Order: sequence, then structure tokens, then C-alpha cells
Amino acid sequence: VHGDLDTPVVAIDLDVVDRNISRMQARATALGLDFRPHMKTHKLPLLAHRQLEAGAVGVACQKVSEAWVMAASGVGPILITYPLIGEVKWRQAARLAAEFEIEFQVDSEVGVEGLAAHLDPAGETPVWVDCDTGRWRTGVSEPSDALSLAKLIDSRPGLRFGGLITHPAPEEAHAWFAEARSVFGTAGIAIPAMSVGGTPVSFSDAPVFELATELRAGTYIYGDRACIAAGSNTEEQCAMRVHATVVSTPAADRAIIDAGSKVLSSDETDGVRDGTYGHVVGMSEVKVSALTEEHGHLDLSACPGDLELGQVIEVIPNHACVVTNLADEVLLHRSGQTVGAVPVAARGRSR
Amino acid sequence: VHGDLDTPVVAIDLDVVDRNISRMQARATALGLDFRPHMKTHKLPLLAHRQLEAGAVGVACQKVSEAWVMAASGVGPILITYPLIGEVKWRQAARLAAEFEIEFQVDSEVGVEGLAAHLDPAGETPVWVDCDTGRWRTGVSEPSDALSLAKLIDSRPGLRFGGLITHPAPEEAHAWFAEARSVFGTAGIAIPAMSVGGTPVSFSDAPVFELATELRAGTYIYGDRACIAAGSNTEEQCAMRVHATVVSTPAADRAIIDAGSKVLSSDETDGVRDGTYGHVVGMSEVKVSALTEEHGHLDLSACPGDLELGQVIEVIPNHACVVTNLADEVLLHRSGQTVGAVPVAARGRSR
Repeated sequence: VHGDLDTPVVAIDLDVVDRNISRMQARATALGLDFRPHMKTHKLPLLAHRQLEAGAVGVACQKVSEAWVMAASGVGPILITYPLIGEVKWRQAARLAAEFEIEFQVDSEVGVEGLAAHLDPAGETPVWVDCDTGRWRTGVSEPSDALSLAKLIDSRPGLRFGGLITHPAPEEAHAWFAEARSVFGTAGIAIPAMSVGGTPVSFSDAPVFELATELRAGTYIYGDRACIAAGSNTEEQCAMRVHATVVSTPAADRAIIDAGSKVLSSDETDGVRDGTYGHVVGMSEVKVSALTEEHGHLDLSACPGDLELGQVIEVIPNHACVVTNLADEVLLHRSGQTVGAVPVAARGRSR
Repeated sequence: VHGDLDTPVVAIDLDVVDRNISRMQARATALGLDFRPHMKTHKLPLLAHRQLEAGAVGVACQKVSEAWVMAASGVGPILITYPLIGEVKWRQAARLAAEFEIEFQVDSEVGVEGLAAHLDPAGETPVWVDCDTGRWRTGVSEPSDALSLAKLIDSRPGLRFGGLITHPAPEEAHAWFAEARSVFGTAGIAIPAMSVGGTPVSFSDAPVFELATELRAGTYIYGDRACIAAGSNTEEQCAMRVHATVVSTPAADRAIIDAGSKVLSSDETDGVRDGTYGHVVGMSEVKVSALTEEHGHLDLSACPGDLELGQVIEVIPNHACVVTNLADEVLLHRSGQTVGAVPVAARGRSR
């Protein structure tokens, strides 16, 4: 898709996207799991619709404002996989849930009471309990705490316990969910669903899949350097490429491209914390060794002089989701032909 | 500015901004230098106008698309401090320069010839020569190369040699510029201007100031954690604060806020490469220890249990410019009162 391209540009290969959607849906089906794609990777209603048409049971959004963009484009049902805390958020959540099919996630009594006080008491909104099974981020630490929250949810008009959810699914998740099943069983409380997530784990033989009922993943649809490192996507299965122009060749061992951290982001992320900020397609000896805002620094020590001024290269970024979040639009193409530039509708929706 | 604030939000204190503008302009004046603020930090025409009113001789933009936003808002003259390479860029540059007062920067013959082939040959557009005085990014390596480019520029109709420019101004810059003055002097070519840049160097006693004629800086207007580390801004002189809500307190030594890398960015940047992603105002014992896209991880080991659910905190980010580039709008306030939310007009303009 080079031609008269104005760089830097974030290009998305729709052929690869279609194949990735089919592949992950087939994987979830083979595991006997529902599949719920995460919107954070593409932030595009048009791709969400394709994921739903392929068999997804719904989608996951992190923030209320992101969910609004998706809901307004006919995408749903939506599970907001984030703890909503505070009057402003609860009011927003209630307004959204009054119009669309929305589910929530909590990890505190405050979170439950806030939703209960604002959502329609005549409704039956699913509220999931976030479980920290080893990620050390949000979520209750113990299955007994999950049980307490589940009981509290069920005791409140308008809410019903939706299930247990964790991200990602570390090895410890299996033991955690097994204990939860036992604890809930003893208390006579059914667990309607158990949701696990993450692109890297999706193609593994994680024991937690025996207990889980739902798989969530996002990054698989585009793929990135971290996915290549984790084995979930090959280079050919990476749909997102940043096209950039060589704008300076000040020394034989150094070149500068016009994509810096404003396009590629400074993210190193799990599996690729190695001081490298992308993979240059077809040029494995070229290292993206540093980024400043508008400059990508290419280390050519292994291939001196191999790039020339004006040359356009393709970079697979370290982390696709954050690149999406930097781009006002992405360029869709298929079979080497441009389809069109589409606004990244849910970009920047961090509230 | 808390109140009923929907977080996360990037808030800008206009009182502090005004003082920072005056302080830097006074510093440049005291050094006997012209001052040219860089737009990358705020990306807001309204603040560019204030910088010009305070005495700036013009502004610096990195990309043509960024310059368009500023020019269209009446901001100028504009120096595009970036090597423009390729037909698409040269055509855009020519269209921009036909309507507004624009200056350019080059570090290659290709760059000079491209501008010469597209700009109005009847004009007299200043073209500066980018010098690599120790930053190892773009720029010619030797003063003799700078002389060759300056001669080439002057030989082309429509262009005139605008001066030498470097970023930032490392210690080696003084010797480099001194040699350049000698080399150009021998050749009988005048150097109309010498421009050095960077907020950290601005308040130093860099010897290069003896030779320079112009100072450029951007970050000083907002300040950030890197500026605090470099000594250019105190905490009170940091106008940008990200207001974030504590949304999860899963353990006494850990809390999660709703500002992650989508708001604060993963940038560590010079002087603050220490695995910390911001400074929590008034709570020096709280460490922003990790970021994922929507989660800011706070390490409370030094102050267990010190934060509670729903509490709003203020974070001074590591690097203000990249935070600006992530925000669709920023909230302006003065004397504790909200002024208004203003769209970040030049956000994402990386072309």
C-alpha cells in the first residue's frame, strides 16, 4: 500500500484481520468456551461487528466512554471489565445500562453498592466479580472474598451475580478457580460463568480452560511484536504495520524514520522488554533502538548503509493496542489495494 | 478543580503557565537570545499566541500537519524543525509556505533539492541546516558538511541559508559551533543565526550561549517529572497534573488509579528512567510503579493503606508532551476555578 502514501501511517490488512478473527473463534469453540473479544485493540465498531458475526457472545470494554462508542454503533452486549468507582461513573453507567445491554465488574463492596444505588432496581444487570489470580492488579485476592461479593450482589435489587472473571490467566488461575468452585459449592451459590483472558494464553493448554466457560482476547486480531514473541501470531499473522519513511541517514550505522513514540508508543510490554521498539518487516538486522516523539532511531550496525533516504519501511509495533490509541485514523487495505481510512472511533476514551 | 470531576483528566493551571511563559522569555532575554517556543508540549494555538505576545520571535513545529494547525490559527512565523523527505512532504510544504511564513530545516542534499524543486523560486524561504552536535539523532556530523549544505541552499532560487540549528545543546555544542564559525568565516559565508534548544539547558550556564543567537524550548511551559529532575521546574512550577481516581485497593501496599498508559504514557525519558511513571503531588511515599493501558499501579509499601477507594489524586507525569498527545482535550483552570475544556488542536499530528 505504499504508492503516494503520506507517512507515518498505521495500516491494517483486512485479509489478515479476517483470518485472525476466524482462527480465534475456532480456538474458543474447540475449547468449548464462549468468546468475548476486547475492543481495546482496534477501537473500531466495524471490526467489533465482524467479531460478533463470527460467533462472539459479546464484547469487553474497559471504560464507560469506550462502551458508549461501541453501543452507539450497535455493538453489544458489552461487559465493562473495569471497576467503576464514584458518583459520576455510577450515574454514567446507569444511563448507559438503561439504553443498552451492559454488564459490569466489581472488586469491592463500594463498587457493588454504587451500582445498586444507581441502576434500575427492576432490572437484572449481571455484575461479575473480578478475581486476582496472580496478576497483582485489581480483583479480590481470595475465593472467599469473591463469595462475599457475589452474595452482596445477589442481595441487591437490580443486580445479579454474573460470574467470576480474571485477567490474564496465569498458571495459578486454575487452583484459584478450583477453590472458588468448592467455596461457592459449599455455600450453595452457582457460578454462572468463569471468564479468562489474554491473547498469549489463548493458544496454550492452560489447565484453567477445564474450569472456564469464557475466553476473552483482544490483541490477536492485529498481532504485534509481543504476540510474535508469545507465539500467538506469526509475522504473517500481524495485520498492523506502521509505514514510515527514512528521513535522515546521518551515519552508515544509523537511520531515522518519521515514526517516533507519537506513533509507535514507548511501550515495551511483556515478552519484549529488550530496548527494541518494533520489528522491521523483511529486515531483521535493522533494530528500532530508540524512539523520541517524532523520530524512530534505527541501529544499522549489523547492516551498515542498508537504508536510503526516502525509503518506506514497515514496522510491526511492540504493542498494537497502544498504537491504535495514538492514531486518529487507520488505513484499511486488502489484497494490496487501499480500502479506506477509517477514524478510530473509540480512541482516547479513557473515562 | 476536583468537585464533580470525571477522571482521568489532564488539568492545566493557567496561573502557572503564565508564570512559566514570563520566566522563560525573561531568561532568553537575559541571555541576549531570541526565543522560539516549541509547540509539541501544549499543541494549543491559544498558548502559542500567549508565547508570541510575551516576546517569542516565532514558533517551532516538528511536522507539516502540526504546522498547519498552528498556521490556520494565526500562529507564526513557524520553523519546521524536521527533515522533510519525499514528494508528498515537499508538495505539502510548498502549499503551506505559499500561504504562511514558514521556515525549514535540512540535513541532506536530497532535502535541499526537494524543497528547491517545490517552493516558489521567486521567494526567499529560510532553510536552516540541522547540526548533530552530540545528540546522535538527525543533523550533519561535521561543520564542513554544514557549510556545503549552506552553499547548496544559497545556490538554489527561492531558498536562502537561514542558520545553524541543533537539539538539544550538549556540552560539545560549543566546540562544534565555534568550529563552524571558523569554517564559515574562512569561506566568507555569514551564519545568520545559531539556534540551540531544550528546556533542561535553558537555565544552565552552557558555554554555547556565547555563540548562539536563539533559544528554543517547549516543555518548560507545563513542566513534568523530568523537568523537576533536571532542575528547570519545581513541583509548584508544573502546570500539568493528571487527576485520577483510586478505583481499587486490593491490598494495603497496592492501589490502582484510573489513569494508565493511555493517559500518562509509558515514557520514562531522560533523567527519570527509574521505573516510576509520575510524581504523586503531596504524597512522595506513593510510587507510580507500573502502568497498563487503563490502570496506574501505585506501590504503597512505604505508606500502607494510605489511599482509599474513590480518592482523587494528582499526578505530575514523567513527560508532559506525550501526555498532551494522548489527550483529546485538556481542562484549563485558574485560581482553583475551571476555565474550560479545550480541544488539543494539534494532537496526533505526526505527518
